[in-house]
Amino acid sequence: MLDRIRSTQDLRSLEHLELVRLADELRAETLKVVSETGGHLGSSLGVIELTIAIHAVFDTPHDKLLWDVGHQCYPHKILTGRRERMSSLRKKGGISGFTRRSESPYDPFGAAHSSTSISAGLGFSVGFDLAGEEGHVVCVIGDGAMSAGMAFEALNNAGSLGRRLIVILNDNDMSISPSTGALARHLSRIRQITDAPEAAATGRHNLFQNFGLRYVGPIDGHDLHTLLPLLRSLKEADPGPILLHAVTRKGAGYHHAEAAPDKFHGVNPFDILSGTQVKTPAKAPVYTKVFANALIAEARRDKRIIGITAAMAAGTGIDLFQKEFPDRCFDVGIAEQHAVTFAAGLAASGMKPFCAIYSSFLQRAYDQIVHDVALQNLPVRFAIDRAGLVGADGPTHAGAFDIGYLANLPNFTVMAASDEAELVHMVSTAAAHDSGPIAFRYPRGEGTGISLPAEGQALQIGRGRIVESGRHVALLSFGTRLAECLSARRMLADYGISVTVADARFAKPLDTALIAELFANHELLLTVEEGATGGFGALVLHYLAQKGMLDGRTRIRTLTLPDHFIAQASPEDMYDEARLTARHIAGQVRGVLAPHVSEVINGHTRARGGHQDATPQVHRAEDRG
Amino acid sequence: MLDRIRSTQDLRSLEHLELVRLADELRAETLKVVSETGGHLGSSLGVIELTIAIHAVFDTPHDKLLWDVGHQCYPHKILTGRRERMSSLRKKGGISGFTRRSESPYDPFGAAHSSTSISAGLGFSVGFDLAGEEGHVVCVIGDGAMSAGMAFEALNNAGSLGRRLIVILNDNDMSISPSTGALARHLSRIRQITDAPEAAATGRHNLFQNFGLRYVGPIDGHDLHTLLPLLRSLKEADPGPILLHAVTRKGAGYHHAEAAPDKFHGVNPFDILSGTQVKTPAKAPVYTKVFANALIAEARRDKRIIGITAAMAAGTGIDLFQKEFPDRCFDVGIAEQHAVTFAAGLAASGMKPFCAIYSSFLQRAYDQIVHDVALQNLPVRFAIDRAGLVGADGPTHAGAFDIGYLANLPNFTVMAASDEAELVHMVSTAAAHDSGPIAFRYPRGEGTGISLPAEGQALQIGRGRIVESGRHVALLSFGTRLAECLSARRMLADYGISVTVADARFAKPLDTALIAELFANHELLLTVEEGATGGFGALVLHYLAQKGMLDGRTRIRTLTLPDHFIAQASPEDMYDEARLTARHIAGQVRGVLAPHVSEVINGHTRARGGHQDATPQVHRAEDRG
Repeated sequence: MLDRIRSTQDLRSLEHLELVRLADELRAETLKVVSETGGHLGSSLGVIELTIAIHAVFDTPHDKLLWDVGHQCYPHKILTGRRERMSSLRKKGGISGFTRRSESPYDPFGAAHSSTSISAGLGFSVGFDLAGEEGHVVCVIGDGAMSAGMAFEALNNAGSLGRRLIVILNDNDMSISPSTGALARHLSRIRQITDAPEAAATGRHNLFQNFGLRYVGPIDGHDLHTLLPLLRSLKEADPGPILLHAVTRKGAGYHHAEAAPDKFHGVNPFDILSGTQVKTPAKAPVYTKVFANALIAEARRDKRIIGITAAMAAGTGIDLFQKEFPDRCFDVGIAEQHAVTFAAGLAASGMKPFCAIYSSFLQRAYDQIVHDVALQNLPVRFAIDRAGLVGADGPTHAGAFDIGYLANLPNFTVMAASDEAELVHMVSTAAAHDSGPIAFRYPRGEGTGISLPAEGQALQIGRGRIVESGRHVALLSFGTRLAECLSARRMLADYGISVTVADARFAKPLDTALIAELFANHELLLTVEEGATGGFGALVLHYLAQKGMLDGRTRIRTLTLPDHFIAQASPEDMYDEARLTARHIAGQVRGVLAPHVSEVINGHTRARGGHQDATPQVHRAEDRG
Repeated sequence: MLDRIRSTQDLRSLEHLELVRLADELRAETLKVVSETGGHLGSSLGVIELTIAIHAVFDTPHDKLLWDVGHQCYPHKILTGRRERMSSLRKKGGISGFTRRSESPYDPFGAAHSSTSISAGLGFSVGFDLAGEEGHVVCVIGDGAMSAGMAFEALNNAGSLGRRLIVILNDNDMSISPSTGALARHLSRIRQITDAPEAAATGRHNLFQNFGLRYVGPIDGHDLHTLLPLLRSLKEADPGPILLHAVTRKGAGYHHAEAAPDKFHGVNPFDILSGTQVKTPAKAPVYTKVFANALIAEARRDKRIIGITAAMAAGTGIDLFQKEFPDRCFDVGIAEQHAVTFAAGLAASGMKPFCAIYSSFLQRAYDQIVHDVALQNLPVRFAIDRAGLVGADGPTHAGAFDIGYLANLPNFTVMAASDEAELVHMVSTAAAHDSGPIAFRYPRGEGTGISLPAEGQALQIGRGRIVESGRHVALLSFGTRLAECLSARRMLADYGISVTVADARFAKPLDTALIAELFANHELLLTVEEGATGGFGALVLHYLAQKGMLDGRTRIRTLTLPDHFIAQASPEDMYDEARLTARHIAGQVRGVLAPHVSEVINGHTRARGGHQDATPQVHRAEDRG
């Protein structure tokens, strides 16, 4: 049956019972694909019937279908011309794990961060109206995503504009973890009340009706016999926003996933029969867990430490903290804005809140960071996981901008861990630093394998460290590119280029003494960071310019993420594309020094004040290379 | 009566009728203060009774009182030890127009951006619990502020945590303008339903009940005979979040303000009897209005242009656009996140949305800008009003960070207008630029008085312009400091220093040819911008470093806002503190060149490649100065 579907048009000619059979095949195909590629499984299995029903009833891609977050879009991709390419899912050059406009006209809006679909959908709906076109807009949003503020902002607008818009609430009582908060309880009550038919007559108004949406449901989101006629009738309904409440099960139809929906939210390749996921043996502890254990150790010593996250409890390791300190731990749901200002209130109360939020999701709370935290100089601690490029999740999840968006704010202290031992010390530093906001960033994945300290030690604020000393070139790394800098140092040694490698530790305050020393005693200073322009390197440049140190002395280059978004691939491949590996760092050094060497050969030496002794050696080195 | 109130303790010993009399005096005093200083009048007049009742019932400052936005806090300040200083309201060195932690223990949390109070209040509530202290937290939030997403995120969390928290919904059916959206309609229905007693028995659930808050009201927020006993009973209630719905009138008790609440939201000094506000005669049109007229002109030519704002219709001039194009204009309420993603949906539909939002409020939508706009390269236009320092509203309203938070994003084009004629051209440029997101920033207040073009012309993307040519120093300005640069040029001419002044127009893409030319042909390049580090100057430095142009050639300095928040004052005084006036620019140039001159005197010339001819002249100039 699935083999016969070449377009969504084919789908529309099928009978009900054929669509039911198709659902079985689509579920099996989704399971097969993800068992081989890994990816988001549970959410996709939960929307098999919704996917089929929407495409069977609506005229996609003319009608716009928006999947909120987009991680549930695999069956949608299989049905919309991408079945053959699913084996490339989340791989370099392959199909994205989320919706993406450039991939298909069936993806009218890209998503990966949650809760954007109603806003974007309303845009499409108004777009149809203004262009004088007929068309439907269907947004599918989970109950977890519905808790974020922007979803309510969109409901508030949609409820008053009266446009044609169908919002399908895909209610499985989960985000990645079970949903928390008052909304989850309200949805649970709606499900119960409506189970009792006499209650439906009491005239109670639910949240969506409060917002002026027509509420339909709850219905069984796996029952095509209900879904298909209902969607057909909604398609013919008068203009105005409609909320269809579809109750689904995450992982539906695959008993391993239904039994442990959090474990099967995102998976490695796995054996379908046993449900056993492939595990590559860990070479080192992951940063997330190192952070969690360090925070727990600090919290044992200091009652004022609080853990806060926004529906990333497992992803940030806050779930471990929660086990030991349930009263001092708050998972506020998908609500980064609230998380940060709630933390600011706690800090103003004299507590020591740690907000553990991924770099890219923390973007949601930028104004709260500026206005509620930085401006009031409140000691909120930010544990920024998933900093830098993250691999298969692609550019939507890259932690590319936090250095710049934090380190240019007054009052902030901003650190990056160069390895997991440094991370332990930075947790202690943040715990001890009570005079203003402080952030520390660290990447997704495993550490370097360095041995961990028995106990974290608070670092001196604004002090970096020299890791290896040399004479010609200084590499000043902010973050985990330190290992690449050390590799580059070894490569450059083969060319006779002697390299100092320093770990900046702080983007703010800068270690100006270290920078001045590196700058004075080397021919070239290269800053390296896992973030965009306007961050660490920019602050070093601002400083050097301000002090007049750029006036005809040492050379400087700033290596940052490039000025384009980097598509999914392994983190290594992504950093390769970003030209931030040891090979690129070494190449950059050689490239800068090469013309200098040729000047030396031709006798056109430039007066550069000191360091003349270093030049011949570089020259000899280049000669050899 | 007011004269006898030395502390909130005094208030608590007064009888009901005395408090009623006090309300009259406090209203008169507030009116008198604001008539002399200007400021936010209507909101303050609307909470006179609430202010008295809360301080009379609760044990402030131990109990925490949080005013959302904070612009309604003048009577609160008068009652809490700041009466004598009210004449310094919103002035340099004076009392802030918002709550501020550093000003008084009665201000536990600073505010100015909306919708933060419930989040922060919940933080204080949890803080009391964890510290084992008894204490109450009262948040007063307007119905306009309640529409922002973060307020819902906070309700969602508060409704499930069950902590002691009293949220007073100050419902006057207004933000700055009449409230819009479904929430406003819902509140209006609640008010009507509850007026009809039989309706209250039907068991309908309102929004707040659906979030798990105990709902009390609606009550008359000006009736102390109701308010006082009710607040006393709520103070004794069991733990759990309570929403008290108080209906108030903006401007209550002052008929001019009640009759025109939008005009009396923020006022200049005015005559109490006539309601006539002092108007300093305009020397030039304000940027806001120039923008609005330019947008209207473009929209007449292009049906696809849409105007969007977030409860800043009058402040951004979108109200003028709305009059001519009501169907193409959307004020989404205090909901910047939704505004931006709604615009992204419209852009994906082929429309040309212009989002007109103040720089500091646009911070609320940073993630949406990154994830929904930049990443998808959607042509959303951002009209960024109130860029740079804004004067009396102080640091919370400063547009300090947008250059950095936008220009470091891939795909973005970022412009700043140097005068109002440039702004007209930039509106045309944005309208014409359909290949990706584009932003243009401009300051609060009046333009320079330059004559406006009959019609806007699209600028060439990424091209700046040389305004005045010179030989020694290049000033490269991004934004309206251009006028200061031209003044600095005149000052420096007196010292024989010949200055080129250029208007960068674009922070992204940079005009690299212009920069290279300025850099090659001058002894010093100085960038000047009305924004923090990590913005325009940083991008110029990154570029010069990348091209190896910092290696021993021309000097460079980057003038940005300093690394601290600048307190309220006139914009001129604020820029003086920021060292961004003509005097400072000229001083910086002289300071940089001075040691160079002395080297020339002493014969220690440094080889700098070219430009030797310029040096003696500078030397002569410095000698003279």
